Amino acid sequence: MMTDEQTALIALDWGTSSLRAFRLSAGGRVLESRASDHGIQHLPEPGLPGFEAAFAAICGDWLAARPVPVVAGGMVGSAQGWAEVPYLPCPADLSQLPGAAASVRTAAGQEILIAPGLIHDPEGGTPDVMRGEEIQIAGAIAARPDWQASATLVLPGTHSKWARIRDGAVAGFATYMTGEIFALLRGHSILGRLMTDAPAAEGAHAAAFAKGVAMAAEAGPGDLTRQLFGTRTLGLTGRMAGGVLADFCSGLLIGHEIVSGLAAAPEGPVLLVGSPALCARYAGALEQISGRAPAALIENPAPQGLYRLACDAGLLSPNAEDTHA
Amino acid sequence: MMTDEQTALIALDWGTSSLRAFRLSAGGRVLESRASDHGIQHLPEPGLPGFEAAFAAICGDWLAARPVPVVAGGMVGSAQGWAEVPYLPCPADLSQLPGAAASVRTAAGQEILIAPGLIHDPEGGTPDVMRGEEIQIAGAIAARPDWQASATLVLPGTHSKWARIRDGAVAGFATYMTGEIFALLRGHSILGRLMTDAPAAEGAHAAAFAKGVAMAAEAGPGDLTRQLFGTRTLGLTGRMAGGVLADFCSGLLIGHEIVSGLAAAPEGPVLLVGSPALCARYAGALEQISGRAPAALIENPAPQGLYRLACDAGLLSPNAEDTHA
Repeated sequence: MMTDEQTALIALDWGTSSLRAFRLSAGGRVLESRASDHGIQHLPEPGLPGFEAAFAAICGDWLAARPVPVVAGGMVGSAQGWAEVPYLPCPADLSQLPGAAASVRTAAGQEILIAPGLIHDPEGGTPDVMRGEEIQIAGAIAARPDWQASATLVLPGTHSKWARIRDGAVAGFATYMTGEIFALLRGHSILGRLMTDAPAAEGAHAAAFAKGVAMAAEAGPGDLTRQLFGTRTLGLTGRMAGGVLADFCSGLLIGHEIVSGLAAAPEGPVLLVGSPALCARYAGALEQISGRAPAALIENPAPQGLYRLACDAGLLSPNAEDTHA
Repeated sequence: MMTDEQTALIALDWGTSSLRAFRLSAGGRVLESRASDHGIQHLPEPGLPGFEAAFAAICGDWLAARPVPVVAGGMVGSAQGWAEVPYLPCPADLSQLPGAAASVRTAAGQEILIAPGLIHDPEGGTPDVMRGEEIQIAGAIAARPDWQASATLVLPGTHSKWARIRDGAVAGFATYMTGEIFALLRGHSILGRLMTDAPAAEGAHAAAFAKGVAMAAEAGPGDLTRQLFGTRTLGLTGRMAGGVLADFCSGLLIGHEIVSGLAAAPEGPVLLVGSPALCARYAGALEQISGRAPAALIENPAPQGLYRLACDAGLLSPNAEDTHA
C-alpha cells in the first residue's frame, strides 16, 4: 500500500523579488511548493538575518519534520545575495554546476548549496551574464537527450535570454531587454499616452501584434527606434485603436528579438520557457517570422533543474526509488 | 548714416515646452530674440486666454512700437495649439507651406499666420509626422540652391527627424525615438543604476561613445535591445567605468539611428540641424560609420524658415532692402 512519498530534497528558486520553495521526492517529484515575496531585495530584515529569517519562514517546518539536503539557485548567489557565487564561463557543462557552486550554513547548522550563474564572454564581443536561468535550462532539457545534444532555449521576460545548447553544455547566450523596454515605453514614454484599455474588436489585439511582428521581420539594421514611433503615428492618425497600440508595440519588440535571436541560433529545436501567456506570444511571432514552431512550451522547469543540481552534487541519487513507507 | 534697422516681421517658434520670438528686419536679419517657457503645454492659463497672454507677454511691446506681420510654426498649430493646422502631405514643396497655413486673430486684432506640419504616408508603410521641423528645414536650405536640389537633413533630439530633400520639396522623412529612449534608459531602467557621474580618464567619454557606434555599425536586424544590455554587463564586469556607460549607451542608440537613416538617404550632402553639442556627437558617429562628413552643422534655422514662410505668403518682399532711416 502506497502512502505519501517522503521528502528527499528542498529546492529554492530565490530571485530578486520572490522566493519559491519546493519539497521534492527522491525521484524528483514536486510534493509541495510555496512562494513568498522575500526576494533578495525584499527580505524581512537586511543582510544575513534577513536571509536566515526568510529561509526559516518558508521551509523551517519541512526541515524540522525531516532533515534533508537543501539547494538554491538564482540571485541568492549574486553579490547582493546570501553568498556571492562566481559566474561559470561558457561553454558551461550543466552537469558541472556543482563544481562551481558554494555553500552557506545557517545558524541552525543547515547547509545550503547555491548554484553559480553563467557568463558568456566571446572574444571581441561584450560579456553577458545570467543567474537563475541556468537552473531553468538544466531542468528544461534534463529529460530529453536530443535537446541536450542541440537546442535553442528562449526564456522571455524583462530580460529575455536566448541560450544555445550543444553537447549538454550552454555554448553561449544573449540577453534582450525586450520586457523592460516595453514596460518603459508603455509606462513612461510618449507612446504610452495613446495606449488605452478600450475594448477592441475580436481579433484586433492579435492583428495589431502580428502587424508589429511583420514590420520587425522586414526591418533593416537600426530600424527599431523608427518603427516604434509608428505606435504613435498609427494612433494619432486613427489607423490603429488605442486599445491595441500596446499589442503593436509588443509585436515590434518581440519580433526584433526573434529576428536577432534566430540569426545566432543553430538548427534544431527551439524551446520556450516561461509563463504560458508570454510563451504563446513568442510562439506566434516565431512561426510568423520563421515558419518554425517551438518544440515545446515549458512553464517552470526550475524544480527539475535544482533536483538535477542536487543529483550532480551527490546529495541524492537520481536512480533512487521514491521511498514507500 | 545707418541707424537701427526697422522691424518688418515677428516670427514665433512655438513648441510644446518653450516659446521663442524673433524680431526680424525686412531682409531677414534677426534684430532681437526672446524666449519664454510658455510652450503650449505650459501656458500662463489654459486655452485661448493662455495663448493670448503668452503672445502679449513675449512680443506685445514690439507690436505696439511698430505693427508688422506675425508668423508662427511648431506645436502651436497642433490639435492642442492655438488653431489646428492640418498636416501637408509629402512630397511637400516648402514654398507651398503658406497655402496650407491657417490664421488666427488675437483679441487685439493681430493676425498670426500659423504654418502646417508635414505628414509622410508611404503606401504600404506607416505614417510619420512632424510639426516645427519643416520650418527649420526650410530655413536650413533657404540660402543654398544646391541643398534645395538634393540633401538629407538630420535633426537630432528627443524624436530625431531624417528628411530627404529633392527639388525644393521634402520628399519624405522618418522619426527615430533616440533621445527619448536614451532618457528612459538612463533615468528609469536597470542600465541607469550603474551609470555614475564619476570623473573619467581623458578621452574615455569619446572612446565609450565610439565603442557604442562601432557595435551599431556591425549590428544585424533586431540587435539593438541585446546590445543595450551590454551597458549593464560592461559595467558589472568592470570593463567600462560607470562614468562613461551613458556615453556607450548613447553611441549605440545614435549609431543605430544613423545606420538606419543612411540606408534610406540619397547621395548628396548630409546636414545636421540642432544644438552644437548634440550635432557634434552625430557628426562623429556619421563619419565613423560611413566616412561621410556632414556638409554643415546648423544651430537654429527657425527664424530663417519663418522669414521664408512670410515671404512666400506675400507678407513681405524677400528682395526688399532693409530700411535705412
